[in-house]
Amino acid sequence: MSDPVLLPLLGGPPPERRDAARNREALLVAAQELVDSCGVDHVTMEAVAARAGVGKGTVFRRFESREGLMAALLDRSETVWQAAVISGPPPLGPGADPMERLLAFGRSRLTTTMRHAELIRAAGRAGSRSYAAWSFTAMHVRYLLGELHVAGDLPILATALLAPLEVPVLEQQLSVEAFPLERVAAGWEDLARRVVRPPGA
Amino acid sequence: MSDPVLLPLLGGPPPERRDAARNREALLVAAQELVDSCGVDHVTMEAVAARAGVGKGTVFRRFESREGLMAALLDRSETVWQAAVISGPPPLGPGADPMERLLAFGRSRLTTTMRHAELIRAAGRAGSRSYAAWSFTAMHVRYLLGELHVAGDLPILATALLAPLEVPVLEQQLSVEAFPLERVAAGWEDLARRVVRPPGA
Repeated sequence: MSDPVLLPLLGGPPPERRDAARNREALLVAAQELVDSCGVDHVTMEAVAARAGVGKGTVFRRFESREGLMAALLDRSETVWQAAVISGPPPLGPGADPMERLLAFGRSRLTTTMRHAELIRAAGRAGSRSYAAWSFTAMHVRYLLGELHVAGDLPILATALLAPLEVPVLEQQLSVEAFPLERVAAGWEDLARRVVRPPGA
Repeated sequence: MSDPVLLPLLGGPPPERRDAARNREALLVAAQELVDSCGVDHVTMEAVAARAGVGKGTVFRRFESREGLMAALLDRSETVWQAAVISGPPPLGPGADPMERLLAFGRSRLTTTMRHAELIRAAGRAGSRSYAAWSFTAMHVRYLLGELHVAGDLPILATALLAPLEVPVLEQQLSVEAFPLERVAAGWEDLARRVVRPPGA
């Protein structure tokens, strides 16, 4: 689609800000490509600058540090995932029945979190446990438990379903205990069914 | 009781080692008293040395750093708690029925973890998520689930019961969401009952 709008939309960012956002996005795309092809550990500020065709100083001006860049990558990936939950195809997105959505949520969150684990580590303090990310998942699970007519303290039950999907708990299971991913995913589904089924079921 | 043993017991530590252990314990007792009376933040190597009546150098020699001291305090407190689970009075210790023990475990672990949270933070890297502590609780919960004849992947279900008792998840609920402790404890009991009850119950 072409963009015939010459003046900024009411409430939209001014053109200079939009340029800055576009440049920032280009740097994040370059960084994400490097992560995908070489792994988080190989992504340096220099490599991102080279790939995006800008000076190293530009990357530092936008993100301050490698930690800041990693935090921005994490934020971007989390946003993409949340968009899939809110408006992507079922069963993760709307349209499937709530139990199917809950099971799809667990599986998708598990793999997303493991993909994010390295970024979280690389982001250091900047990537420490994000309240915004937790809050989104908590609201979503609470909503699905409500749709499933689960009786009980839904915020606490939502927390109980999310806690096993936290990075240190997943790493304990996948890396330390060396359980296969499929076993951990199936275990979460079993937990979700136990939490959801009515007492007399 | 007097101690008539003049020679070290077979397999016991030599006297010099025993003295070292006693001195170490005296320093840890002094540090724990300071924690109890002033809070973790006020416990310095100097204050511990002064209270135990030794030089600051002695405290540094034993624990290397304040982080090391905090890790040792954490370790000691965890050991005391584990002893209560293994051989303390019921319902946390043996003697109660397994469901009572499981509920007592959850409540006790919740308060112990919150009491430990500050020590864990103060211990920095030295106090990072302890595999030994996790492993003990995982084995205990798995054992109780077995006694309760729960059908399923018990190591995974045990993990699901332990994950909501991890420090960041508890702090999320108690500090960020500001849920009362009693609500979080009751929510864990509800979770435990949902996990334990048979599908047809």
